[in-house]
Amino acid sequence: MIIVMKPQAKKQDVDHIIQIIEAKGLTAHLSVGSEVTIIGVVGDKSHLNDSNLEIANGVDKIIPVTESYKLANKKFHPDPTSVRVGSTEIGPRNLTLMSGPCAIESEEQLLATAKAVKAAGANILRGGAYKPRTSPYSFQGLEEEGLRYMKTAREETGLAVVCEVTSAKAIEAAVKYVDMLQIGARNMQNFELLKEAGKTNLPVLLKRGLSSTIDEWLNAAEYIIAEGNYNVVLCERGIRTYETATRNTLDLSAVPVIRTKTHLPIVVDPSHATGVRAYVAPLAKAAVAAGADGLMIETHPCPEHALSDGPQSLTFEQFEELCKELKPYAALAGRVF
Amino acid sequence: MIIVMKPQAKKQDVDHIIQIIEAKGLTAHLSVGSEVTIIGVVGDKSHLNDSNLEIANGVDKIIPVTESYKLANKKFHPDPTSVRVGSTEIGPRNLTLMSGPCAIESEEQLLATAKAVKAAGANILRGGAYKPRTSPYSFQGLEEEGLRYMKTAREETGLAVVCEVTSAKAIEAAVKYVDMLQIGARNMQNFELLKEAGKTNLPVLLKRGLSSTIDEWLNAAEYIIAEGNYNVVLCERGIRTYETATRNTLDLSAVPVIRTKTHLPIVVDPSHATGVRAYVAPLAKAAVAAGADGLMIETHPCPEHALSDGPQSLTFEQFEELCKELKPYAALAGRVF
Amino acid sequence: MIIVMKPQAKKQDVDHIIQIIEAKGLTAHLSVGSEVTIIGVVGDKSHLNDSNLEIANGVDKIIPVTESYKLANKKFHPDPTSVRVGSTEIGPRNLTLMSGPCAIESEEQLLATAKAVKAAGANILRGGAYKPRTSPYSFQGLEEEGLRYMKTAREETGLAVVCEVTSAKAIEAAVKYVDMLQIGARNMQNFELLKEAGKTNLPVLLKRGLSSTIDEWLNAAEYIIAEGNYNVVLCERGIRTYETATRNTLDLSAVPVIRTKTHLPIVVDPSHATGVRAYVAPLAKAAVAAGADGLMIETHPCPEHALSDGPQSLTFEQFEELCKELKPYAALAGRVF
Amino acid sequence: MIIVMKPQAKKQDVDHIIQIIEAKGLTAHLSVGSEVTIIGVVGDKSHLNDSNLEIANGVDKIIPVTESYKLANKKFHPDPTSVRVGSTEIGPRNLTLMSGPCAIESEEQLLATAKAVKAAGANILRGGAYKPRTSPYSFQGLEEEGLRYMKTAREETGLAVVCEVTSAKAIEAAVKYVDMLQIGARNMQNFELLKEAGKTNLPVLLKRGLSSTIDEWLNAAEYIIAEGNYNVVLCERGIRTYETATRNTLDLSAVPVIRTKTHLPIVVDPSHATGVRAYVAPLAKAAVAAGADGLMIETHPCPEHALSDGPQSLTFEQFEELCKELKPYAALAGRVF
Repeated sequence: MIIVMKPQAKKQDVDHIIQIIEAKGLTAHLSVGSEVTIIGVVGDKSHLNDSNLEIANGVDKIIPVTESYKLANKKFHPDPTSVRVGSTEIGPRNLTLMSGPCAIESEEQLLATAKAVKAAGANILRGGAYKPRTSPYSFQGLEEEGLRYMKTAREETGLAVVCEVTSAKAIEAAVKYVDMLQIGARNMQNFELLKEAGKTNLPVLLKRGLSSTIDEWLNAAEYIIAEGNYNVVLCERGIRTYETATRNTLDLSAVPVIRTKTHLPIVVDPSHATGVRAYVAPLAKAAVAAGADGLMIETHPCPEHALSDGPQSLTFEQFEELCKELKPYAALAGRVF
Repeated sequence: MIIVMKPQAKKQDVDHIIQIIEAKGLTAHLSVGSEVTIIGVVGDKSHLNDSNLEIANGVDKIIPVTESYKLANKKFHPDPTSVRVGSTEIGPRNLTLMSGPCAIESEEQLLATAKAVKAAGANILRGGAYKPRTSPYSFQGLEEEGLRYMKTAREETGLAVVCEVTSAKAIEAAVKYVDMLQIGARNMQNFELLKEAGKTNLPVLLKRGLSSTIDEWLNAAEYIIAEGNYNVVLCERGIRTYETATRNTLDLSAVPVIRTKTHLPIVVDPSHATGVRAYVAPLAKAAVAAGADGLMIETHPCPEHALSDGPQSLTFEQFEELCKELKPYAALAGRVF
Repeated sequence: MIIVMKPQAKKQDVDHIIQIIEAKGLTAHLSVGSEVTIIGVVGDKSHLNDSNLEIANGVDKIIPVTESYKLANKKFHPDPTSVRVGSTEIGPRNLTLMSGPCAIESEEQLLATAKAVKAAGANILRGGAYKPRTSPYSFQGLEEEGLRYMKTAREETGLAVVCEVTSAKAIEAAVKYVDMLQIGARNMQNFELLKEAGKTNLPVLLKRGLSSTIDEWLNAAEYIIAEGNYNVVLCERGIRTYETATRNTLDLSAVPVIRTKTHLPIVVDPSHATGVRAYVAPLAKAAVAAGADGLMIETHPCPEHALSDGPQSLTFEQFEELCKELKPYAALAGRVF
Repeated sequence: MIIVMKPQAKKQDVDHIIQIIEAKGLTAHLSVGSEVTIIGVVGDKSHLNDSNLEIANGVDKIIPVTESYKLANKKFHPDPTSVRVGSTEIGPRNLTLMSGPCAIESEEQLLATAKAVKAAGANILRGGAYKPRTSPYSFQGLEEEGLRYMKTAREETGLAVVCEVTSAKAIEAAVKYVDMLQIGARNMQNFELLKEAGKTNLPVLLKRGLSSTIDEWLNAAEYIIAEGNYNVVLCERGIRTYETATRNTLDLSAVPVIRTKTHLPIVVDPSHATGVRAYVAPLAKAAVAAGADGLMIETHPCPEHALSDGPQSLTFEQFEELCKELKPYAALAGRVF
């Protein structure tokens, strides 16, 4: 942590800061420049967490130097983490393909989709039973009934299944049926939910918040890990920008950035990011080329009749075609697919 | 709802769309232009909610014309709503001043603050007992103990009290102690929490999400109202932009925009928006000049030692000074303060 | 300037950095922490401008401590600058009101507007002769003919006149006719244009770029001042965000931020920021309450027939009404209006 | 164009709008709904360009249906354009690789780089002679001297050369030396510069503005084409968002979006987008996978000593390595490289 003093700071201001630092058992390093004085703080800065030094007399600003997430931090865990989900593993050796409908609408729809995506090459079935929708008048999901269909689909296909959870109650239900919990973008900083997910021993797919920085995302992962659950997989799904040609702006640079900051795996969801079917395939290939550990792709037996997010869903034929196209990209990336 | 066809759409594509519309009991109005054909849909569009017409053959895009929120919509409720909170009222007649510490740290701190802000002119005491913090290692709040202090503060000062809730469990506890529930920015689209808040009969202060559009914000309010609770007060607290000179960018234009779209009251929180004490007073005055129904301002007996958000808190003296400065602005706005 | 080393940096990496710093005649201050080592650099950092230390072995990141703008910096020029424009002065003593049409369409239109805004209380007439329009097929302005009308309007009303310039050629023409040059948002980082404006001795109104940080804005001002022209007035006109309810998001917090960073005056343009007539008056009052030195407001004899930006223009009656409403706000701010 | 009336609009308001439309020789199609009335306008909407119908009585909003760019629009030119630059061609058949230093520093530096990038597989040499820098105190480029070195480099290597131009004067100089003009992000809406570039017969590389929508970008291209110069190549180089882990956020979804909207080729610049050397290679591969027609990559003989943007430049070895890695991606995309 670095404390930058104002040009007009007095000697007594600087002395006062140094006293506070030393009183907390830390060491202060002083650099007196021609324009400004800066104070470097050495030691465990968590002791200063609540000191609000930025409003002490003479202080211009505080610049943090180290990240607040530790368990998710690559600095302290340099080797990449592989997360086991059912019979598959998300990590550096594989290209994991998660697919299925945005919302579970019926047992038939889900089973048909499960079989189709399995046949095409998917490893994990996704499907929403609890849908966070902007308007209260949109379809909100089948809830526990949907979870039961997920379990059936797993039994019939052998696919691992992942489902979004939106409340402590939903987690309580989901742990009985699914292999992986998903925390959606709108709940990325629903810290109570993160803690509940951390208390389960299920792997967690943590989507990036609509306007979350990568640091906030990793701090959200830290909430889960801090409860003892290291099985966190990150999912980039587009961020909110001024551009309206796509629903969100897929931030593929997050993939190499995440690689330098954390040991956790990262998958990419081009379906939600763009909201447009025609853009899914090119960006899926791009995600693999950028180094992603997996993809989440929406499919639907009949997108025109989907109750949620139809315009971005692939048909089974389109999904099968995409899987074929992805094979050489997975091979170039040295991943099993 | 307007359906814009692609230039190369065929007659059978257009006919197909018209069939779908009419099958749902709606009327289609066709405009055949030199470049494109557009189809206006007349009737209750909720019947088409899940039709995914945008991926039907020949369709270029769908343009919604009416808002999805109804109960929060000024079009159907032209008169401004006043929301009663304890013995005060938030609405067009008053300038409501909510103040207190970001986080409740102790009974002494809270009582001292309550008395100081009451003496200076505040109507409502704010204080956080459940703190959503970016890092799991930051102070997370006193929880129910903090709520008890709020109740004591109310009894000792007569101030109404508002407290943020972050889970169904927190709501359950809070209804026993406080006059108003606050939904924070990070939970604005935590729809399960909105529904729970809607089921209480307490007024709800709904902060705008960090990157929420005004339409999404009003849809979030709709979630609360749809449960039968019309006592919603909106709170603008800054949005996320690329600018880093302030913590967020206070969107004061939201005040006049909200006036044209909804009957609900709106208050402004310049403390969280800027994160900098020196910017609070000028923006508080600006908010009143822009037409806000109230302000939420952080105060702390000793900001330098606050456990949360100290840099943006006012001292008691600064708060008293601000109240004096606000009086003529309230008078110009025709509001009692 | 602070250099943060990577946790795994070797002693020889640190020594290498220190050598570079000292070779440039600067001093290095070393703080060795438990996690990271940081090096504070004392002396004239411009010597290191092109050293690209961030890619030297072992370096994690470089954190600048001092601003790159000097002449615009309040640290070195604490007293507020007043800028004389014709017979008026923009600065802390006055509330300056600039008004007129977005685009000059005819002599009659401009003269009628000049007389109306003068009568209502404006000090400076604005009007666009060179219009930067998104589409090449939109009206591009009357160019030099428009400038001549500006001069006539000045002679007939005594108002100072300001006109946007979009090229070196336009500056060459404008200096013959107007009292102040305006650099538009889209040209804020057209550095060649800034230099040309700096070479004239006319005051310059520098609009903030659509997505410019406050630091970039002040660096743009520095380009003008570095040519010897200190007469720069900043104009906040809304920034680009994800919100679409207004054309741009007016960043009123820029007003107090600018006060802490520079001695230059700042005016606010709520017309372009919002793009909606109904939002202009509340935000104009808010801007004055926030401490702005002036306002730029679009007026038009008949906004419905304006060739550019009609929807945000006030009629003469609306402008007159606004001027009346602004008077008590100017008085509260201690400004002559 | 669609005109949406307010719910409370009167019949006479609607009649008035219809009169205006018909007076301009256009046709109005009326759809009277239960909540709102909408009017579709059929015919050449440019006649209405300056009508400002949105402020006519009873009008709620105007929704444009067709794009304002025509010559750049794929609807009217469905076949992809190939742009010849020197002896190479940018378009659907090739993967074009542009490389070189951000700023030209000396003849030696440029020639060494030209030879290295040519040997590795680049087709076009890039190099900045006019540098738009945020601060006036940063290196501004060698100007015409730099252009001369570019010409020498072309003669010695046979590479085509591209150079950024920042003013009409720079264009005048550049046309004597280079094969392609570059318009930088900060000048994307410097419309005078676009017109000047359009008047030359050189191909133009048009970088996307820092906060430009894709529609604004294509309108900027339209400015160039409208002058008779169809040889426009678009370059995605990152947009400004709230995320600070990368300098800008590379918007790779722009590649498939551009494909659906225009016939012009698009290249991607991961160097400027990220500002970090380690992120260049993964995003270069991703860009090719997403369908880009080419890449612009910064290289420098010794990035640590570069006068501009060193941290994002590749060394010659890194560039050669990247070229090898790109080959199979180009092959998968069906492009010659």
